[in-house]
Amino acid sequence: MTPREQTASPLAAITGTPATRDGARPHVVIVGGGFGGLNAAKALADAPVRITVVDRRNHHLFQPLLYQVATAALSPADIAAPIRRVLRKQDNVEVILADVTAIDAANRQVVFGDGRLEYDYLILATGASHAYFGHDEWEGVAPGLKSLEDALTIRRRVLLAFEEAERTTDLEARRALMTFVVVGGGPTGVEMAGALAEMARRTLANEFDRIDPATATVILIEGLDRLLPPFPATLGDNACQTLESLGVRVRTRSMVTHIDAGGVTIGEERIPARTVVWAAGVKASPVAASLGVELDRAGRVPVNPDLSIPGHPEIFVIGDLASIMKRDGQPIPGIAPAAIQGGKWAAANIQRVIAGQPSRPFRYRDLGNMAVIARNEAVVHARGIKLTGFVAWLAWAIVHVINLIGYRSRIQVTTQWLWSYVTSQRGARLITGEQSRETRER
Amino acid sequence: MTPREQTASPLAAITGTPATRDGARPHVVIVGGGFGGLNAAKALADAPVRITVVDRRNHHLFQPLLYQVATAALSPADIAAPIRRVLRKQDNVEVILADVTAIDAANRQVVFGDGRLEYDYLILATGASHAYFGHDEWEGVAPGLKSLEDALTIRRRVLLAFEEAERTTDLEARRALMTFVVVGGGPTGVEMAGALAEMARRTLANEFDRIDPATATVILIEGLDRLLPPFPATLGDNACQTLESLGVRVRTRSMVTHIDAGGVTIGEERIPARTVVWAAGVKASPVAASLGVELDRAGRVPVNPDLSIPGHPEIFVIGDLASIMKRDGQPIPGIAPAAIQGGKWAAANIQRVIAGQPSRPFRYRDLGNMAVIARNEAVVHARGIKLTGFVAWLAWAIVHVINLIGYRSRIQVTTQWLWSYVTSQRGARLITGEQSRETRER
Repeated sequence: MTPREQTASPLAAITGTPATRDGARPHVVIVGGGFGGLNAAKALADAPVRITVVDRRNHHLFQPLLYQVATAALSPADIAAPIRRVLRKQDNVEVILADVTAIDAANRQVVFGDGRLEYDYLILATGASHAYFGHDEWEGVAPGLKSLEDALTIRRRVLLAFEEAERTTDLEARRALMTFVVVGGGPTGVEMAGALAEMARRTLANEFDRIDPATATVILIEGLDRLLPPFPATLGDNACQTLESLGVRVRTRSMVTHIDAGGVTIGEERIPARTVVWAAGVKASPVAASLGVELDRAGRVPVNPDLSIPGHPEIFVIGDLASIMKRDGQPIPGIAPAAIQGGKWAAANIQRVIAGQPSRPFRYRDLGNMAVIARNEAVVHARGIKLTGFVAWLAWAIVHVINLIGYRSRIQVTTQWLWSYVTSQRGARLITGEQSRETRER
Repeated sequence: MTPREQTASPLAAITGTPATRDGARPHVVIVGGGFGGLNAAKALADAPVRITVVDRRNHHLFQPLLYQVATAALSPADIAAPIRRVLRKQDNVEVILADVTAIDAANRQVVFGDGRLEYDYLILATGASHAYFGHDEWEGVAPGLKSLEDALTIRRRVLLAFEEAERTTDLEARRALMTFVVVGGGPTGVEMAGALAEMARRTLANEFDRIDPATATVILIEGLDRLLPPFPATLGDNACQTLESLGVRVRTRSMVTHIDAGGVTIGEERIPARTVVWAAGVKASPVAASLGVELDRAGRVPVNPDLSIPGHPEIFVIGDLASIMKRDGQPIPGIAPAAIQGGKWAAANIQRVIAGQPSRPFRYRDLGNMAVIARNEAVVHARGIKLTGFVAWLAWAIVHVINLIGYRSRIQVTTQWLWSYVTSQRGARLITGEQSRETRER
């Protein structure tokens, strides 16, 4: 039995021997259908390669708007598009739904639970999920915001908290039910806190009899001395003031030391709260560990300047999974534009290598940062220009609608936003899923 | 301790003593926020009563379009509206999210897990779920279609079946993965079978590499000798022909004797199929059993002509939970118009009784029947008129959009339908939820 036969599996059998060994087109495997992976696949549309995109979900997710699903403004389908559908017109690509458990770099194979897939070139773009800094036990009580399931869990908990507050006569329990804590003052935390405050004050106002949702307390906790660390200080201050005008209590220089189903502890102080959202840390996808290279503290892969990894010029790592510095020595941030650019760059480098040319070092183009706080309120920092308030909000909305993948999503999201803007309502206020279990848990 | 104090609970404490005993307005409790309950609440808007609507879900569900969620055409939020939101402008109503476990008719109390609620008048409108004719073990492998969770389960299974068919090299397994069986040839079964066939033939065509979704087999099984028993025979035949032209195999006079994860058995014949949808039977909500009256075979409550129950003129049962005959001796069907009319009628009878007048026997106005089969194809039977094809389909679409509750839903659904009509695409093709478990199960 040869090693080849040993690794044979149904999947390897369909996918077959890498074509180069037959003198045909090289096989590029892209793991991850996020911003990085999808853009890499598209950039290779006219390249002389066969491409297989592997993802454990059937959909690309527009993560920047995930907080709107968590706060009942959008439906999951508004911000997700089937990967097959997105790539349907590209002839040289195949899409497989499978969970990649490891990379066997020595044998140039991607490993699934039930098979292996051989590659000539690999683009690894599996992204990151949230990290609890060694407190994984917090995950159950303080969900993060990375997948559609995460967003629906948060939506269910937030809406149930108001319903339970309406029913209880225990005033202390009611106060804890109407206290919402967001941990982490980066863009996601700011967006969640603002959206929660708006939902309580505008959307739910006048719909309850025993509670006034507008008296709900939203607390945003950040360990550093100000919000939005990636932005200039004046914009962080602007976000802080805007949030406070919406009634959000912003707590900077505060480290969370404990979280349980009853609330959050900051040092000696206990904040009773039944709903906690985690927006504080990320860790890279665990598949990186199988590459055999040393990872950074967040589990990311330190890549060569051309986005390949040391010792394996055929493996490229991009997006949130890669650790790479800008020319100024600062890390390239884990945001969608960086993943998109990385995907295109890795695709271009693969084409150069195939053509016998040397690969080129990644040049990251900083398009700036934007974060939305509330209706008519956002902060934008791009090319030295700082915007706040309505102008920033409009820029944010336009950029996000334009970049949504799929004609349908754009129409749906724009319709929803116009409707929400006019009515202050949220279109997806549904408590679905494991409701009974959730209720029992607390 | 008086009996009153014994039954006191947090919830009873908030809701307080029924107001009539204090000489104030009588308390009407409506259990169920479906078509019947919601219309009863609205009909009592100007009545001298206090109303409490209790539902275990926070949303009203537009069930006639649930099959479109199951087949990825609409999102859950498109066909569901928060009950609080629907009733927000009505001053005399309160909404409580709670799971009613029993009715204590002797003490005039509704019983929850954690409390009781006293009433002067009760409208019971908890509806029905699917029944497996004594084979409850089929539920796990053949989900029915009553809740949003049911619809999302079916959506996930159908989409996963195509993904797994693409990956497998086992031709027998692939055939079973691409066989979809719908059990039950009533309107829901016809709608599901038609939508599945369209999805395979139009939506998913050209998106896979190893399978041709258009070769998927959809089988519709009905025990009687024709489809759509409530309709005239010519319309049932029309539906059958339309389905067959879409490639659906219609099997009438066929009784399913066994279902498991591998397929369906009809008598001696085994049909290997990995996805089975149950649309064959309903049973009334179990809360009816606590009323202490004899139920019919489907668990429904045989009601008096005025919709009250024997021995309890203050309790009205409406919608799918009630068993009542038309003047011709035929049962009033379990469809939305019957529930709506019943809700309004019960509300009117409560007002009559409060005003010292006798209640009046329910007069059901038969608005007819409609069922959609596919794009441009439906059957309508109303007031002796029979429509088929495009005209019927247009009538179906207009009636359903008009009756959707909530301004937003109408815009969203219309936009979605127009988009789907032009592109043959489906906007909600997401595999979400307990994906990994599902994959492992099979």
